[in-house]
Amino acid sequence: MTTNLAETGRTGTRLPVGKTAAVDSIWSVTMAAMTATGDLAETERTKLRRAADRGSFDRALAYSILDEALVAHVGISTERGPVVLPMTYGRIDDRLYLHGAVGNALLRAGTDAQVCATVTLLDGLVLARSAFHHSMNYRCVVLYGTATKVTDDAEKLAAFDAIVDQSVPGRAAEVRASDPGELRATLVLRLPIEEGSVKVRGHGVVDDADDLDLPVWAGVVPLRLTPGDPMQDPDQTATAESGPLAPPAASRLTR
Amino acid sequence: MTTNLAETGRTGTRLPVGKTAAVDSIWSVTMAAMTATGDLAETERTKLRRAADRGSFDRALAYSILDEALVAHVGISTERGPVVLPMTYGRIDDRLYLHGAVGNALLRAGTDAQVCATVTLLDGLVLARSAFHHSMNYRCVVLYGTATKVTDDAEKLAAFDAIVDQSVPGRAAEVRASDPGELRATLVLRLPIEEGSVKVRGHGVVDDADDLDLPVWAGVVPLRLTPGDPMQDPDQTATAESGPLAPPAASRLTR
Repeated sequence: MTTNLAETGRTGTRLPVGKTAAVDSIWSVTMAAMTATGDLAETERTKLRRAADRGSFDRALAYSILDEALVAHVGISTERGPVVLPMTYGRIDDRLYLHGAVGNALLRAGTDAQVCATVTLLDGLVLARSAFHHSMNYRCVVLYGTATKVTDDAEKLAAFDAIVDQSVPGRAAEVRASDPGELRATLVLRLPIEEGSVKVRGHGVVDDADDLDLPVWAGVVPLRLTPGDPMQDPDQTATAESGPLAPPAASRLTR
Repeated sequence: MTTNLAETGRTGTRLPVGKTAAVDSIWSVTMAAMTATGDLAETERTKLRRAADRGSFDRALAYSILDEALVAHVGISTERGPVVLPMTYGRIDDRLYLHGAVGNALLRAGTDAQVCATVTLLDGLVLARSAFHHSMNYRCVVLYGTATKVTDDAEKLAAFDAIVDQSVPGRAAEVRASDPGELRATLVLRLPIEEGSVKVRGHGVVDDADDLDLPVWAGVVPLRLTPGDPMQDPDQTATAESGPLAPPAASRLTR
């Protein structure tokens, strides 16, 4: 499951179809034409040093991870040191969108500044016979770049849709769209998906030969973020006159 | 479920019993005596600005989150900008331990430097009637501080145990402990759990009054990182002469 450059090739990567922006505007046409098609950029800071066999710059693999996860951990550098906070996000083609209140300190500090956005999916506990070889299976994308404030309203609305659809695909089309006041109250940053790397560990236990006969169970325990039964807003059950409303189908909650 | 200072009090917080270090040494006795008992430190950078009603400095709450999660997103500041990477970790009392190969670039850069370690548990999708009020339920600890290289072998071994036990409680006592070579090959950093904050969102949908009658299902979809069926190392099933070995009980995988 480990994917590296040698396996994926640096060119000709087939891209998944990007999410369609819900707003039709000059912006969306222009941005679509600018969509990057190559691999992520290998630079001094994305060069894979440790466990390079787990690394990749494959764009399609990066997109698949970004589209499955729900939260990015976004880091900025400040005078007092680094700050890392979890944020929801959305992806449209080769752009990652972050949002928050206009007063959000991290987003304000990240505007026109270098940010690092890291998205991690935990896939399993790797339980070895030795403490040393314990590990995790995971898929992780690390993106670096300058985040830019989105000023175009159509792009902001498309970003909102992408962020809502990130949690439940198709949800944006079902809910009340943001009004002008909500649009003004929200700061949206765009991070290009260009400089970054992917790391994947997706294999079994690797123990030392000398340890193989130890009487210790070894193997992988798969992990998955699993949705439970939807809990309807009690205000809604009391007021719904149009009859019962159905929660999103389970198939839309587990991608 | 939101906990703030007013609810928890700044003094007299009852601490959970810390994990017992597996190595008995002068170090462990000394460190135990130094265990912090107060709340996390509110400083200029931990002051809660946005959604302060979701925030807390409660140490016991911070520990409960740190002990349940599996991965921290650790940030450092570099000349080229911030870097955020996922890392496993372990906690002993008021100390968070990170580890990696001695050549690990992030750990080397983080030694005697400011780091931010953020641990997030995703608890649910909050699906509102409006795009604007979509949210997530989560529990998050953000820790700031100077990370220090651990040089005492007993403390390093105790840190290894804590890191292994973080994935499966009690596992460290069952596996082959690290040998001197593995000890030398591993860099361990200690981050004091002192300056930081906790944020929790754990309530239902908050929609605008005008939206309550919209025919859109609203509510919370709980999320939980769930273990699947353990998959035994195929090398082991072929070689186990002492009979079948049992994987860790499910109760040890779901805390």
